[in-house]
Amino acid sequence: MTQVMVSEVGPRDGLQSIKQAMPTAVKHKWIRALAEAGLKEIEVASFVPPKLLPQMADAPEVVREALKIPGITVLALVPNLRGFQDAVAAGAPKVTLTVSASEAHSMNNIHMTCAQAIESAKRIVAFRDGLPEGQRPHIEVGISTAFGCSIQGDVDESWAIEMAVQLAAAGADTVGLSDSVGYGNPAQVKRMFKRLIAELGGKAGGAHLHNTRGQGLANVVAALDAGVTTFDASQGGIGGCPYAPGATGNIVTEDLVFLLESMGLDTGIDMPKLLEARKFLAEGLPGEPVYGFVPDAGVPRNYRRAVDQHA
Amino acid sequence: MTQVMVSEVGPRDGLQSIKQAMPTAVKHKWIRALAEAGLKEIEVASFVPPKLLPQMADAPEVVREALKIPGITVLALVPNLRGFQDAVAAGAPKVTLTVSASEAHSMNNIHMTCAQAIESAKRIVAFRDGLPEGQRPHIEVGISTAFGCSIQGDVDESWAIEMAVQLAAAGADTVGLSDSVGYGNPAQVKRMFKRLIAELGGKAGGAHLHNTRGQGLANVVAALDAGVTTFDASQGGIGGCPYAPGATGNIVTEDLVFLLESMGLDTGIDMPKLLEARKFLAEGLPGEPVYGFVPDAGVPRNYRRAVDQHA
Repeated sequence: MTQVMVSEVGPRDGLQSIKQAMPTAVKHKWIRALAEAGLKEIEVASFVPPKLLPQMADAPEVVREALKIPGITVLALVPNLRGFQDAVAAGAPKVTLTVSASEAHSMNNIHMTCAQAIESAKRIVAFRDGLPEGQRPHIEVGISTAFGCSIQGDVDESWAIEMAVQLAAAGADTVGLSDSVGYGNPAQVKRMFKRLIAELGGKAGGAHLHNTRGQGLANVVAALDAGVTTFDASQGGIGGCPYAPGATGNIVTEDLVFLLESMGLDTGIDMPKLLEARKFLAEGLPGEPVYGFVPDAGVPRNYRRAVDQHA
Repeated sequence: MTQVMVSEVGPRDGLQSIKQAMPTAVKHKWIRALAEAGLKEIEVASFVPPKLLPQMADAPEVVREALKIPGITVLALVPNLRGFQDAVAAGAPKVTLTVSASEAHSMNNIHMTCAQAIESAKRIVAFRDGLPEGQRPHIEVGISTAFGCSIQGDVDESWAIEMAVQLAAAGADTVGLSDSVGYGNPAQVKRMFKRLIAELGGKAGGAHLHNTRGQGLANVVAALDAGVTTFDASQGGIGGCPYAPGATGNIVTEDLVFLLESMGLDTGIDMPKLLEARKFLAEGLPGEPVYGFVPDAGVPRNYRRAVDQHA
């Protein structure tokens, strides 16, 4: 039975995009509920300056609390060396760095060229390698706007792969590809991940796909076909689109888990418990829209988890 | 360049599920606008008793008006021999019959066993074959609930394929598979269409996939992989789910066209004109929800039609 990892990014990527801050105590409960549903990797916080993102001011506390939960990998986003140091101080065992493949997006977002951003990421990797053994987090790099950019339009595919190769060679543990703006299509997603896996082998990371144009799960099918086994998603699709009702950003975890389990791919996730965890979104983000086709329509009456199909 | 046919079912399948009737004059304008956007096959009406579906009482007139539009195949649904005769009288060159693969659904819906429904369809085919040359419509059969049924749960896959084989042998021109309740998953969709194509060859029909659980386009990717080249969809996803906001029934034509064209598959459809045609939904169905991720989020700035990618 094929195992597929669903990496929950709601508590970081989701909450980061919502103005309203989820109370820290609710974050703790939500993350615990996600773990109890079977999520094995949860991105719980971002180590950014609290002035910029007050919703993430409790990052050290959220990481420390999540580390008490057995059986999950606690992941934190770090934007730079300072954030990386903070994440290490909080005890994060795995961090994500993002580097944009679009020059226009990189300049607009962090005022660095792609080359400068690569050097910045390499410095973080080098710093990590100088830490005492046992304090060196796994570093996953996400190549953002790998499938196109809403500022510059096309992004050169060979350049995105070349960035991944450079960063893996510099010591990043895994490098994945992100469709940050929902521009990707299945043909492109399959082609790009095939190249990534051919170039990086075991260092090829997961797929961070958005559903902005409704293509998220279609792109997952293509990525599965290319050999991808880790997918980011956000419970309730939170942190999605600021401008259009129904047009979400992240893939909805519930819909992704339904896709994978129905296909006989084992995520280890229990759907009723996953649906139950949504209550903490209502509790911690009152009035915020929460998405999901499977939560709305319900699971089919013949739904069986992959483990039960194979039993 | 691979050609893929998007068969628009909104004016029939969509409108049939909505209580409010679209005025006949708006139907005419909408169907014409869809044809001008490049749709080549449009299911325009259902020949059912007006008492049951008053929204379809204008079926003969809608068919006759649609027949004036050059370059499209006008399709009508017929539930039985009487409806078939009415469709022939109106001049429909192609009709769809549906036969359910679920005994429970068939009994519940038309008070016939599957075997009885197959016989009924065979009688329609035989009647068609007795008509004068030039008056014999193409008959497409859709095997509904082929991927599962909300009443009985599982539907035996071999039985669904066996029905298709029997109906093709009886003279149906094409036989497709329908995921009427949005239970299908990509592994199953690929497996089933591979079998259908292996058994029926050129008589294998298209995929009628629903997006009830957000899996519609993921299932399209799987069906493409199996060799399917015709997909049903409904503009604005109309006629979808009666019970859950955002949980639509039919795949949204706009999102499907975006998927296919982005992948370099030629549908012949012009996206701006397709989006423009949505105005007739607002005009003819005031207050009715209209869906679509691509219409909400907009096409990417680097969007190119398949014909332009290959130019």
